Amino acid sequence: MLRHATTYRVIYGDTDQMGVVYYANYLRFFEMGRSALFRHLGLSYREIEARGYVLPVSEASCRYLAPAHYDDVLRIETSLDTSVRAGMKFDYAIRREPDGLILASGQTRHAFMTPEGRVVRPPGFLREWIERLLETP
Amino acid sequence: MLRHATTYRVIYGDTDQMGVVYYANYLRFFEMGRSALFRHLGLSYREIEARGYVLPVSEASCRYLAPAHYDDVLRIETSLDTSVRAGMKFDYAIRREPDGLILASGQTRHAFMTPEGRVVRPPGFLREWIERLLETP
Amino acid sequence: MLRHATTYRVIYGDTDQMGVVYYANYLRFFEMGRSALFRHLGLSYREIEARGYVLPVSEASCRYLAPAHYDDVLRIETSLDTSVRAGMKFDYAIRREPDGLILASGQTRHAFMTPEGRVVRPPGFLREWIERLLETP
Amino acid sequence: MLRHATTYRVIYGDTDQMGVVYYANYLRFFEMGRSALFRHLGLSYREIEARGYVLPVSEASCRYLAPAHYDDVLRIETSLDTSVRAGMKFDYAIRREPDGLILASGQTRHAFMTPEGRVVRPPGFLREWIERLLETP
Repeated sequence: MLRHATTYRVIYGDTDQMGVVYYANYLRFFEMGRSALFRHLGLSYREIEARGYVLPVSEASCRYLAPAHYDDVLRIETSLDTSVRAGMKFDYAIRREPDGLILASGQTRHAFMTPEGRVVRPPGFLREWIERLLETP
Repeated sequence: MLRHATTYRVIYGDTDQMGVVYYANYLRFFEMGRSALFRHLGLSYREIEARGYVLPVSEASCRYLAPAHYDDVLRIETSLDTSVRAGMKFDYAIRREPDGLILASGQTRHAFMTPEGRVVRPPGFLREWIERLLETP
Repeated sequence: MLRHATTYRVIYGDTDQMGVVYYANYLRFFEMGRSALFRHLGLSYREIEARGYVLPVSEASCRYLAPAHYDDVLRIETSLDTSVRAGMKFDYAIRREPDGLILASGQTRHAFMTPEGRVVRPPGFLREWIERLLETP
Repeated sequence: MLRHATTYRVIYGDTDQMGVVYYANYLRFFEMGRSALFRHLGLSYREIEARGYVLPVSEASCRYLAPAHYDDVLRIETSLDTSVRAGMKFDYAIRREPDGLILASGQTRHAFMTPEGRVVRPPGFLREWIERLLETP
């Protein structure tokens, strides 16, 4: 249930001279995915920041399975791993539309921090929000 | 005298599938150029910010004369147009090393602002700094 | 008639430490705009390339009127200036949704080239395509 | 011995509104690092391509330990893991100059491919080149 998909169309600026999407840009796609997931679940990342928390990435990884090309419509599937409690962990799959071929998969881990950079425990409002979502049938 | 040059080597991530540097990245090179100019003149942009001013770009333009390729060493020549008083204006030329072929030329204009986004007059310390540089034989 | 609008939501990766969209990224938005215009008019840029032509940017300019922020939905309005015959020229306006505030305006000029980098005259199929669109009531 | 370090100064365009370098950009730094390593070892990536091979990334990962800031000079340390035979694997450490604080570490794995996208065995010239380097006292 804590998953969501959004789409993005590859532009020239995403590609490199190999004729495929440059590998660093998949981490941008991951951000699009988790941002869309937050919005879908009713709590935008902008709001989390407004409440005094930032969620910097502590780890990111990506496996590149097949190249994405210019003008491809990518389907960015994001899910929140609710088993992780200390911070947040997201899993991603990037698929090509319309055939669904999987192009890449990856993960990011995030810590809860104050804007000044101090690591803090997961804020109560976020824990409650996740628990409420998990209970929704 | 208020000019300076710095170099940058093109990476894969700067190119696009046409096999040349993507056009938006020249504006990154321009930033490298003016940042190096500030440092060369003894007043880093970081210090200007520390004194409570930001210099957002109000206009940018670029003419693309010949393409830059992967692994090219670019020479970014930046000069400060000291005839402009209301804000700051920089002129740029991007040349390929070692033959000096000009690849692009451009300009950026900047306003003086507070971090909150209010346009302000050029700060005295910056005016004095420029005048001192201009007087230096 | 030869105009079109598309939207894009700003991600963290588009912003800089001033808390606004980094100036070079507007040129990415311009590309999204003209790419969407081509598709809307029934001739994707991908097809133009497939027919053996590329359209590298020869000039780009942008005026930054008000900053775009994280999570803003941008409306990218693109129009093709059909008075330009030698190459192609596009005009852009970036507006913030939903209030329509104009954030930036700009232009790009493009030459017709072979993939090998030789400048050529506008291909007949493209001229005919534009004329047909202009005649459509 | 198969290691090398290069430096890069962070620009505004690398940062995001959290005031630190955006996480995807570390993968650009990794590319700068391995590209500098290749050149240092006497075989530029450009040459490998000229001989008909590309080395697309099959896996990338990064651990973010401390944030990099605007104007920081980063030291990108890259080493080639010569125990990996099927493709190539690089390890990276990003340190802040001049204090050497480690900001990030990561890895990339690469496959050998033809420009058409067919996976091939490591080319002889590259195996020999690595063996020669390993034997050099």
